[in-house]
Amino acid sequence: MDELWLVGVGMGALAHLTLEGRRALREAGLILLPHKGAEKGRLAELRREILIGCGATAPVAEFDMPERDPALPYLERVARWHDEIAARWQRAVDASGAPNGPVALMVWGDPSLYDSTLRIARRLDPAPSLRAIPGITALQALTAAHAIPLNEVNGPVTITTGRQLRDHGWPDGARRVAVMLDGACSFDRLYGRGLEIWWGANLGLPEETLDAGPLDAAGPRIVALREALRGEQGWIMDTYLLGFPD
Amino acid sequence: MDELWLVGVGMGALAHLTLEGRRALREAGLILLPHKGAEKGRLAELRREILIGCGATAPVAEFDMPERDPALPYLERVARWHDEIAARWQRAVDASGAPNGPVALMVWGDPSLYDSTLRIARRLDPAPSLRAIPGITALQALTAAHAIPLNEVNGPVTITTGRQLRDHGWPDGARRVAVMLDGACSFDRLYGRGLEIWWGANLGLPEETLDAGPLDAAGPRIVALREALRGEQGWIMDTYLLGFPD
Repeated sequence: MDELWLVGVGMGALAHLTLEGRRALREAGLILLPHKGAEKGRLAELRREILIGCGATAPVAEFDMPERDPALPYLERVARWHDEIAARWQRAVDASGAPNGPVALMVWGDPSLYDSTLRIARRLDPAPSLRAIPGITALQALTAAHAIPLNEVNGPVTITTGRQLRDHGWPDGARRVAVMLDGACSFDRLYGRGLEIWWGANLGLPEETLDAGPLDAAGPRIVALREALRGEQGWIMDTYLLGFPD
Repeated sequence: MDELWLVGVGMGALAHLTLEGRRALREAGLILLPHKGAEKGRLAELRREILIGCGATAPVAEFDMPERDPALPYLERVARWHDEIAARWQRAVDASGAPNGPVALMVWGDPSLYDSTLRIARRLDPAPSLRAIPGITALQALTAAHAIPLNEVNGPVTITTGRQLRDHGWPDGARRVAVMLDGACSFDRLYGRGLEIWWGANLGLPEETLDAGPLDAAGPRIVALREALRGEQGWIMDTYLLGFPD
């Protein structure tokens, strides 16, 4: 593996792919993919639709995603998991023979935002030359779907995770907070403060679902909607923006 | 103007355009562009290269950018300026006759992030139906160029402006701060704190320039590099990420 390309593919819609991303997937010598069972069915399907839709013809090498060890503390658990994923990438590439060109990995959203692929790639030894290709993040898909700005005029925005919001509450002095990786509807700790929410699931896909409004009223609606969607789909990818009215 | 499409085109490289953005520019009935003199020469050139590169064939309507009134307080100055831009869009579209399809506006980066186009569009009366198309932001182009994550593992990121950083200093408790719209190298207030900087100008373009390292050493280098680039180009579009070493 001399060269590894991390291709941000957006939220799953082929429409989110950039011309640079499409070209990279077409020019790659080998595509490294999580084994079908390792990902929720719809996500595995979307990856394959993107590859077909962009005209990629390289052979595919599949790897199994390891389990995280729940006995370890959070950061160590993540570090060991990343070590093991890197080892599995290497084995999958080795097993496929010498790739006829760069190895490409598709990354949901963008390789820089709440994604481990860059950190895992840095563990490879020998280190391949790394190329990151930017992709549309969930936040841009969310704001586009609602046709709203992420920030107030000249205002700052905090991007954070559900875990951070649960553990540390509303960031001091923040006016706009974008939340990712929240499996627990952590906005429910923030009722009664006059916040607005803009929420979306399956962003950019035909099954895109949106809701927005004053948090106290919209929050419980979103909790129910999320449960229903998760029940139907078996999984959910969603994100939201919180802010005070202008 | 029944329909207005705001198309995020990334940082100027055709490679940043998404398949959705390309399709929108091809399907538009009229393309609304700032008059050539209203924008720095290279930016006007990039817009035209994108239109040619993506195969757009719609007629172009040009508008002149108004001046901001320096006598007004900041927020009012921006509000009046937005009113005037909306009026000029309307006049440019009216002057071009009834467009044969949606009107499209190209937006640098993404329509949601430190861009006024959505706010200006909300002032149009009668209100057209608005569609925002996500694009690659300067932050994604920056992190891709450096092949680094924006966030620490599960960590929050503050996105802010040079003005905010100058007026309010380092955001309380922040570990990672991405700075946009900084014409004044406001990072120079933050020497001596052990910060790292990742900086980039002309991101994604052939003339892309990068620098990175401990802020105390890299900061003065970047100040000089910025001055030299601005001297050569007559303008500069740059952005940077600040953070503590892992």
